[in-house]
Amino acid sequence: MAIATALDQLEVGFDVPALPGMPESEIQTPALVLDLDALERNIRKMGEIAKAMGMRHRLHGKMHKSVDIAHLQQELGGACGVCCQKVSEAEVFARGGIMDVLVTNQVRDPAKIDRLARLPLLGARALCCVDDKDNVADLSAAATRHGTQVECLVEIDCGAGRCGVTSTKAVVDIAQAIAMAPGLRFAGIQAYQGAMQHLESFEERREKLDIAIGMVRDAVEALRALGLECDIVAGGGTGSYYFEGASGVYNELQCGSYAFMDADYGRIRDADGQRIDQGEWENALFILTSVMSHAKPDKAICDAGLKAQSVDSGLPFIYGRDDVEYVKCSDEHGVIADPDGVLKVNEKLRLVPGHCDPTCNVHDWYVGVRNGAVESIWPVSARGRAY
Amino acid sequence: MAIATALDQLEVGFDVPALPGMPESEIQTPALVLDLDALERNIRKMGEIAKAMGMRHRLHGKMHKSVDIAHLQQELGGACGVCCQKVSEAEVFARGGIMDVLVTNQVRDPAKIDRLARLPLLGARALCCVDDKDNVADLSAAATRHGTQVECLVEIDCGAGRCGVTSTKAVVDIAQAIAMAPGLRFAGIQAYQGAMQHLESFEERREKLDIAIGMVRDAVEALRALGLECDIVAGGGTGSYYFEGASGVYNELQCGSYAFMDADYGRIRDADGQRIDQGEWENALFILTSVMSHAKPDKAICDAGLKAQSVDSGLPFIYGRDDVEYVKCSDEHGVIADPDGVLKVNEKLRLVPGHCDPTCNVHDWYVGVRNGAVESIWPVSARGRAY
Repeated sequence: MAIATALDQLEVGFDVPALPGMPESEIQTPALVLDLDALERNIRKMGEIAKAMGMRHRLHGKMHKSVDIAHLQQELGGACGVCCQKVSEAEVFARGGIMDVLVTNQVRDPAKIDRLARLPLLGARALCCVDDKDNVADLSAAATRHGTQVECLVEIDCGAGRCGVTSTKAVVDIAQAIAMAPGLRFAGIQAYQGAMQHLESFEERREKLDIAIGMVRDAVEALRALGLECDIVAGGGTGSYYFEGASGVYNELQCGSYAFMDADYGRIRDADGQRIDQGEWENALFILTSVMSHAKPDKAICDAGLKAQSVDSGLPFIYGRDDVEYVKCSDEHGVIADPDGVLKVNEKLRLVPGHCDPTCNVHDWYVGVRNGAVESIWPVSARGRAY
Repeated sequence: MAIATALDQLEVGFDVPALPGMPESEIQTPALVLDLDALERNIRKMGEIAKAMGMRHRLHGKMHKSVDIAHLQQELGGACGVCCQKVSEAEVFARGGIMDVLVTNQVRDPAKIDRLARLPLLGARALCCVDDKDNVADLSAAATRHGTQVECLVEIDCGAGRCGVTSTKAVVDIAQAIAMAPGLRFAGIQAYQGAMQHLESFEERREKLDIAIGMVRDAVEALRALGLECDIVAGGGTGSYYFEGASGVYNELQCGSYAFMDADYGRIRDADGQRIDQGEWENALFILTSVMSHAKPDKAICDAGLKAQSVDSGLPFIYGRDDVEYVKCSDEHGVIADPDGVLKVNEKLRLVPGHCDPTCNVHDWYVGVRNGAVESIWPVSARGRAY
């Protein structure tokens, strides 16, 4: 779908929730709102952390699906490029000027393989993951057909239980096949432990990551013994990056949610037992919602329901308010317990969504605010690009 | 956002999952697929049922958000117009030529009230709900300002616990205020029992609806005693329409999900104890997904995760297959238990989503198929229009 590029052609309320220059109070709800100061602090902080650990940081673009924010993460946070989960997302980022693009996923459909192999024709470096030797010939044929190069990481399933192989022997077999295939380059290993990121306990997360690091180290050493060096050993999320950073074997992080935070990630604890949204990272992403009915004295109904967020990881919380609570979510309504009847119709509240990734995917726009005014309107550039 | 209107400008894979004329096997996944034969049978059947009961049927457009399907429901199913939940949806339907539009919700924000009052300038009949006398003056001022008429239904909360008043006295107070307000017309009552639609037992659903019908009848009679006739007494969903239809007091149904079906609705039982997706309605909506990894012998990974569906009402099931089961959903992956290892990489499966409404809202396109070929590509016209 073509995006109208001229902001002045967009009608507030119909096309966009707000326009730059408007006071925050006039944003049409529900809308995704970014606290730009908090966002920029999160981005700068991750850049400094990665640098101090001697790691590259490849921003995870599947979280926000925004070309504008990816550029910010490269410029303010020193990110080395983007990773994403779909070829269609990779196309959006490459067309948007992000020139180092890793699809952290398997690409098997013939049409998708062809599109991936054409990404370098846009000037972009194209990388993907492989967990099956049968995939190598198809990737190689497509790259050869287009006269391009696709760089391949062997994916290890180090605990997430999704794609990826689970033995060093399988890693070696696939890596050797890649290394010998025309049009492909063996670039290293992808090993993201997605299942432990949301465990509350720091120690429990460390235990899971220790297993992952052991698997990765074993594979890297076996490959080295065969003369196959891993330029990239990649993984690490917002709940684990310090473990990969200290591992001595990973060299590239792939954090996403740190930039925005959400309710589910916010609950996990740092090494000192503190919630990570109360020190390590700031809430920068909110669903702005309005009270639309208060026909019962102890219950307010707001306009952000299932069409404005994903509740797969639990309900949102209301930012900065202890006196009211979001207790139920249906298609178009949120029910807010308001025992003291303090909320007024049309009052606006900031919700911190349960899970930022699928929540951003239902919105078209990020409304960036600073000092009470709208500063930017950024499209959710790759929204809906699931294929 | 502007929709590119010329299909030949759209790139398969980047812009759209398919184009008319393609074989079904080449659809890029994940994608929403409609079985057009099943869809048309569901639509015709509901039209016949409503007619036999002497009821109007106002299709619920919040479910599919599609102008094309709304036209089909008017043409094949005799629907009298559309209802929807947001002013922005109402604008999409009115601009798309659906000329009788009811917002089954409260409209309180000043900008939204203004937009609602401008809908008749497009030639559309505009209706909304009211549950607070304070809203009447604002609606009246906007309609007067634009020289239009907004028709108002008083909303009764008959068990859903969201918007709406709960006493006949409150209904009468608001109805009288509407009747006296310039620019407004009192049109009747909105009473949708949203909380009981998904109860499995037919008898339990009937008990909840009996309470609702009692509240509505009491209000209608009290209004009549004061000379206020209800042209519209509206409510009824896919899990209840036969109760409203037989009530003698409702005269307009608002069913949505019957046209598509989903896993959660499919589980509820008809009067004979049969699942409603095994007789009453057909599954017409599917998420087409592809197997993208099978690195473990008993587990296949498919490409439809949380960005391709909402799991608020449970996981999808795999249509027509007893040998494999969708058991886990993460952002971009679905885990399929495949105990006998029967699935192949790139094999396509049809998922029946847990909840159709928020699932449709994450997609841009409906791919209509018939006899194994793609026949239509319809935009999800009001996707993302939550404000």
